[in-house]
Amino acid sequence: MEALLRQSRTMCPFLKKTSPATLRLLSNSANVQQAAAVGGGAMSNLQIIARRCPVMGKALSVQSGRNIASSAMAGAFSGTRAYHTKPPRAKLHTTAPKEAQAVDVHSLRREHVPFSPPGAKSTTQQHQHGMAPQPPNPVKFDYDAFYQNELDKKHKDKSYRYFNNINRLAQEFPRAHMSSAEEKVTVWCSNDYLGMGRNQHVLNKMHETLDKYGSGAGGTRNISGHNQHAVSLEAACAKLHAKEAALVFSSCYVANDATLATLGSKFPDCVILSDSMNHASMIQGIRHSGAKKIVFKHNDMEDLENKLASLPQDAPKIIAFESVYSMCGSIGPIEEICDLAEKYGAITFLDEVHAVGMYGPSGAGVAEHLDYDVYANGGNPRGTVQDRIDIITGTLGKAYGCVGGYIAGSARMVDTIRSLAPGFIFTTSLPPATMAGAETAIKYQTAYQGDRRLQQLHTRAVKETLNSMDIPVIPNPSHIIPVLVGNAEVAKKASDLLLEKHQIYVQAINYPTVPVGQERLRITPTPGHIKEYRDHLCQALESVWNELVIKRTSDWAKEGGFIGVGVQNAEVVEPLWTDEQLGLKDFEQDLKAGQGALGALENVLEREREAVQAVAAAA
Amino acid sequence: MEALLRQSRTMCPFLKKTSPATLRLLSNSANVQQAAAVGGGAMSNLQIIARRCPVMGKALSVQSGRNIASSAMAGAFSGTRAYHTKPPRAKLHTTAPKEAQAVDVHSLRREHVPFSPPGAKSTTQQHQHGMAPQPPNPVKFDYDAFYQNELDKKHKDKSYRYFNNINRLAQEFPRAHMSSAEEKVTVWCSNDYLGMGRNQHVLNKMHETLDKYGSGAGGTRNISGHNQHAVSLEAACAKLHAKEAALVFSSCYVANDATLATLGSKFPDCVILSDSMNHASMIQGIRHSGAKKIVFKHNDMEDLENKLASLPQDAPKIIAFESVYSMCGSIGPIEEICDLAEKYGAITFLDEVHAVGMYGPSGAGVAEHLDYDVYANGGNPRGTVQDRIDIITGTLGKAYGCVGGYIAGSARMVDTIRSLAPGFIFTTSLPPATMAGAETAIKYQTAYQGDRRLQQLHTRAVKETLNSMDIPVIPNPSHIIPVLVGNAEVAKKASDLLLEKHQIYVQAINYPTVPVGQERLRITPTPGHIKEYRDHLCQALESVWNELVIKRTSDWAKEGGFIGVGVQNAEVVEPLWTDEQLGLKDFEQDLKAGQGALGALENVLEREREAVQAVAAAA
Repeated sequence: MEALLRQSRTMCPFLKKTSPATLRLLSNSANVQQAAAVGGGAMSNLQIIARRCPVMGKALSVQSGRNIASSAMAGAFSGTRAYHTKPPRAKLHTTAPKEAQAVDVHSLRREHVPFSPPGAKSTTQQHQHGMAPQPPNPVKFDYDAFYQNELDKKHKDKSYRYFNNINRLAQEFPRAHMSSAEEKVTVWCSNDYLGMGRNQHVLNKMHETLDKYGSGAGGTRNISGHNQHAVSLEAACAKLHAKEAALVFSSCYVANDATLATLGSKFPDCVILSDSMNHASMIQGIRHSGAKKIVFKHNDMEDLENKLASLPQDAPKIIAFESVYSMCGSIGPIEEICDLAEKYGAITFLDEVHAVGMYGPSGAGVAEHLDYDVYANGGNPRGTVQDRIDIITGTLGKAYGCVGGYIAGSARMVDTIRSLAPGFIFTTSLPPATMAGAETAIKYQTAYQGDRRLQQLHTRAVKETLNSMDIPVIPNPSHIIPVLVGNAEVAKKASDLLLEKHQIYVQAINYPTVPVGQERLRITPTPGHIKEYRDHLCQALESVWNELVIKRTSDWAKEGGFIGVGVQNAEVVEPLWTDEQLGLKDFEQDLKAGQGALGALENVLEREREAVQAVAAAA
Repeated sequence: MEALLRQSRTMCPFLKKTSPATLRLLSNSANVQQAAAVGGGAMSNLQIIARRCPVMGKALSVQSGRNIASSAMAGAFSGTRAYHTKPPRAKLHTTAPKEAQAVDVHSLRREHVPFSPPGAKSTTQQHQHGMAPQPPNPVKFDYDAFYQNELDKKHKDKSYRYFNNINRLAQEFPRAHMSSAEEKVTVWCSNDYLGMGRNQHVLNKMHETLDKYGSGAGGTRNISGHNQHAVSLEAACAKLHAKEAALVFSSCYVANDATLATLGSKFPDCVILSDSMNHASMIQGIRHSGAKKIVFKHNDMEDLENKLASLPQDAPKIIAFESVYSMCGSIGPIEEICDLAEKYGAITFLDEVHAVGMYGPSGAGVAEHLDYDVYANGGNPRGTVQDRIDIITGTLGKAYGCVGGYIAGSARMVDTIRSLAPGFIFTTSLPPATMAGAETAIKYQTAYQGDRRLQQLHTRAVKETLNSMDIPVIPNPSHIIPVLVGNAEVAKKASDLLLEKHQIYVQAINYPTVPVGQERLRITPTPGHIKEYRDHLCQALESVWNELVIKRTSDWAKEGGFIGVGVQNAEVVEPLWTDEQLGLKDFEQDLKAGQGALGALENVLEREREAVQAVAAAA
């Protein structure tokens, strides 16, 4: 035995790192003697751990399968029993008058006589080899204490979340009321980036669909929940991204999770290469796939190539990444990733969740935006960045203002996911009105650029103002404005102060959403954030920064800079939307002269705002 | 080496069952020599398999971590790079005129120059120790062929799903139109069991909420997506089940998946005992938890107790099961499971998805129904079956006619899931109008019994008629009417024939949803399925049974019966809703005399229908 253990230790890292004393403890911590006597009826903690090893686990399950088969024969179960089960009848429960009273449930439970199935002796009793039945061990797992401990940990590390009651008012966008209808605030952190949640075309379509087709789909896609709204919405998603097909899910969380889990588990020996800043939905999908996961450094093509090069050429590989990373606003190098994918035989999985509706002449996202002029000229061009992406995922719940998510790609890939992914198959379809509303939003944003342009202009205006005020904006080329605080408690205080003192709602973003020390306020302007609101926001931030003595950009600069803030001689981060794409070329003269850049920008904004309102009103 | 291998084989079942030839092949199938030379830069297939072993995987990841660290140093990456990434500018892509044309993407790709990061030599090159860079191996994984193969398999085993385009008409419930608005059918398989999807109270509330709060929530619950509708809906769900708290998810698929995955992964050494007929959402949640899973035979308390007794008393255990099993209509022995849970220190996780709205005086489900009189008398009684359940999950997308799901239980448990479950945290909230509509539906069904009673009466009428016609209904105590066909191809043909020839939509239920050989039509009556529709259904089934020569109950009986159909001297399966609960006691005389049972039932139905319509109209 000792020799075997020594030999085992040279091979098995678990045995190697675990002391003999711990191993002994683990193997003694359940009634192992009994288990051994009857061939594994009880389990030691060591056995429980062993079951997690794919190698030992298989051996153990073969063994336990044998035990189950023999106990099944002993019990003489009937195959048809499942369909005959007579439910416990209500009268059994309702005739006992004591239960009709509001009594202390714990006292009732203590009186409870342990259940004992009528007829045959239980296996437990058999295990005891004819000994008198013993009462169960009273040491049971304390679930409540476990929950409390988990919550205590969240409170302790300041990651416990307090939800703010925010009721966004369609007619007063971007205003909302708190739990009291009188208490109003301006929302500066919603992902309804374009205000499509109150777009009259969307709302009209939803009202009409609700009346005609009701409030719910009434089934899964396979069983009575497939309808013209699903067909039409999926066609719109496919067309948006110039792909053969699309598939709609309850959310893009589910779309990412289900698609990565399905492909990663089905492709033989699949490896998934995942950007280190990928969203939780992709991280979960990869975990759920059971495939090998390799994380590459955020947007680091050298690191990605090194990792791709280390893998067998013929192994299936998925590179999973995002276009706009929501918490810092950075943008993925989509074309370079396509190059690497082609070189190393990988497919690309691009999450455009924070980009659909926001970039590109049709609002298809960053991949489309990279070939702006090509798509602006119409047609369905091949060889573009978007065309080279294998799987694009998007949401209907952010820029499109509704709820739900989708994937788009080749017809075969989409049909495979449709046919295999439990998260798609076994869930109720989105309501017809939701699907019709989302389709209207996609088509509205495909036909009209005004909202996303105005959103970009507002983003530029806020970023420029904050920069001029020495308030630390983490630089990025996108529509996200991350303002660095750098401390969880202070970030929460800043958010609370903005809400209570200034009637401005910006949620603090703390660990685990961002790393400790990088806590921030994440500001998302919309076309509705006109000058009045922007001025108010900037003044409020100035006040909060003073009141809480939060570091300025110049303070970070004195420390050598941090995550892009206050970095000397840093490369200038240019916005993805160019002046030309925003229609600012004509105003270049104004911008460089007259009342200064900000003043000229405001003139443009005012004109754009009026145009956007006119289009939206024509419902 | 040979001695070590022999020794390893006695310990590792994988090595034991794999031939030396296969092992050699696996270890040679990638460029292992290079890998060995540089310390693991490439991976053999054996290494890929080894990474799946939690024991070997850990050892390998420690090793690869070292490699990554050294390559990172060689590459001299900057920590701030992530935030500075300059996106590939649009002009880079739009100035190349060839890409503006519709060209064959494959020809473009073949011309593609492999990506090579500017500056430093890549690690791949370093791995080759100064050798000239070699072109990548052209043998790449064929993704398209893989998809096609998966689809071919589905076609071959007849499990490929064809979706029917069914547009359920709110004003003509239970009628729907197909892709053409003129082509109308009667829907007999929707899970909008009570027709709440067209309830005027629900629709009014949704219209009002849409206008006031817009089409979407605009964010996750933590970031601007928490509102009065969520607060109020969760309070309604908690109150419905007489629990301290509730939490709403995108769907009950997500609720089950996220809750089981979170608890199973967080409880130390957790074991989940799962009914063999549990829904896919629970199966996925258990898989995703990584916890040990033990499947017990459907509704078999002896088997469950044997399995519970084999586990350490102090280990956390979850018993996961359903109240109404949707595909066969059987009902779980909830009270007995509570008894076993208490005896063995487990918690209970009960999916009431097909039961909420349908059972119990408040529509809280089967657990409530088991203490019908207690709950009918009001108050919040302790010690009832429902009170003893730790976690109840339900849907807003079936009997409540909307979409979404929830869990209900202790405040601590709910707060733990709220704080830890990625599937809850990182997804957009349901739209305000959806939440408001669902809450209205719950409250309507809590206050009014008419719909579910009428649904039960219609179910009884259809079951009795089909039994009298020798059409094989799988017996069960619930509202589901599974009609046995027993062959995938015939079941699909029967469904197609019903639709095309009789304008009746009943989806065929085939493998993998039910076992091979148990294929069926699953019929779900609603309060809207009045006599005209029921007569039509029964005549159509008779015609289809004749045309396709499908086995009758008497045919199954000749073979000794199958899954409850045609079993001689079988125990009579009584419906969970008693005559008394359905208000039929007064009509007992009529039922036993006069125009026979069915005729008397129709009289009751007519009276009930009129009452239900009057209540629904008072909106």
